[in-house]
Amino acid sequence: MKISVVKNILDANNRIADENRALFDEKKIFVINLMSSPGAGKTTLVEKTIEALKNTYRIAVIEGDIQDTYDADRIAKHNIPVVQINTGGSCHIDGNMVRETLPSFNLDELDLIINENVGNLVCPAEFQIGENAKVMILSVPEGADKPSKYPLMFQESSVMIINKTDLLPYVDFDMQKAEQDAGGLNPDLNIYKVSCKTGEGLDQWVSWLSNQIEAFKQQ
Amino acid sequence: MKISVVKNILDANNRIADENRALFDEKKIFVINLMSSPGAGKTTLVEKTIEALKNTYRIAVIEGDIQDTYDADRIAKHNIPVVQINTGGSCHIDGNMVRETLPSFNLDELDLIINENVGNLVCPAEFQIGENAKVMILSVPEGADKPSKYPLMFQESSVMIINKTDLLPYVDFDMQKAEQDAGGLNPDLNIYKVSCKTGEGLDQWVSWLSNQIEAFKQQ
Repeated sequence: MKISVVKNILDANNRIADENRALFDEKKIFVINLMSSPGAGKTTLVEKTIEALKNTYRIAVIEGDIQDTYDADRIAKHNIPVVQINTGGSCHIDGNMVRETLPSFNLDELDLIINENVGNLVCPAEFQIGENAKVMILSVPEGADKPSKYPLMFQESSVMIINKTDLLPYVDFDMQKAEQDAGGLNPDLNIYKVSCKTGEGLDQWVSWLSNQIEAFKQQ
Repeated sequence: MKISVVKNILDANNRIADENRALFDEKKIFVINLMSSPGAGKTTLVEKTIEALKNTYRIAVIEGDIQDTYDADRIAKHNIPVVQINTGGSCHIDGNMVRETLPSFNLDELDLIINENVGNLVCPAEFQIGENAKVMILSVPEGADKPSKYPLMFQESSVMIINKTDLLPYVDFDMQKAEQDAGGLNPDLNIYKVSCKTGEGLDQWVSWLSNQIEAFKQQ
């Protein structure tokens, strides 16, 4: 009984996500679903990505938070379109929440939408929103055991960004284990090591994203 | 419709949690529900607490994880009873999962049960398990904006442990904001600043816990 309720919710969500996807395809908009634990550095990565790409692509951001507009306020300073989803207690964004933001954008004038999900390493990985790619962040202070303990997030993602590498000298983080365990769960996972604080490694992530957008436009 | 389903699940859970609570009262067992984001230091805090109190109290641990037994294996080395809950994808433990572990313990020979929840700053706060107190950890690298962004966890908890204070020199963490925002959400919140790595500040947490257990035994 409980299982069928959950299945119905996920099926209904997938249908809406497919409709979002069809619209994004028609408008040639590349869409990212960005996920991580709370405080791993999602908003800072979004800001760095905007700075790197805003002269090349027309970018918009959808911010998912339980309440309030702290992250959207940070993004708005970069002078790009941003809409806040307040989930009202829910621990993830879903296809319908994203759909409801779309009338706020001029979709004919966008190349890239970044969805910043609620900080949560579990549930967001279960809910499609119509994205081209799921991107997740593992921050160094969280520890290298996270792929083994929260596998779905790593299995579903196209990219794992290992953030806060500037803290490596001060914490016990087994980089080899993190890479091996995540790669074991998902052999196609692209792994980039970055410090959003110092900027180190961000060029590789930005390069991956640019290549994806270009390949998508050629389709 | 969706809301009533959620309400029914929470009501059913609360009934089971009350039954757990009645059993713990009868057996005079103090029970903690320990929650945080992934990688904030729950298991290490449990280990430090066991080391500090295992000569004074008879302690058991219930480990909640999506899969596998990494944390339970760490706890088992301390030679105390430990049972692993594998939630099978679910992002929190609930009253029924805890109830199902109880036949594995000799409840007549315990003073304290520590439940380590799944790493998640959202959903675990919604599910009672029959605990005397919810204790949550905010780790310094997560940032001081977390109380405002994930308020329920801070409202529901009796204690906020600010962990990884050894990293304060290397990250931007506004201690005053964290304390003020959390205290604004919950004026009764006890706040302890600790480094599980260096041991700094742990004595205050251990003292609070001992006092709670003694007061509970006198009831």
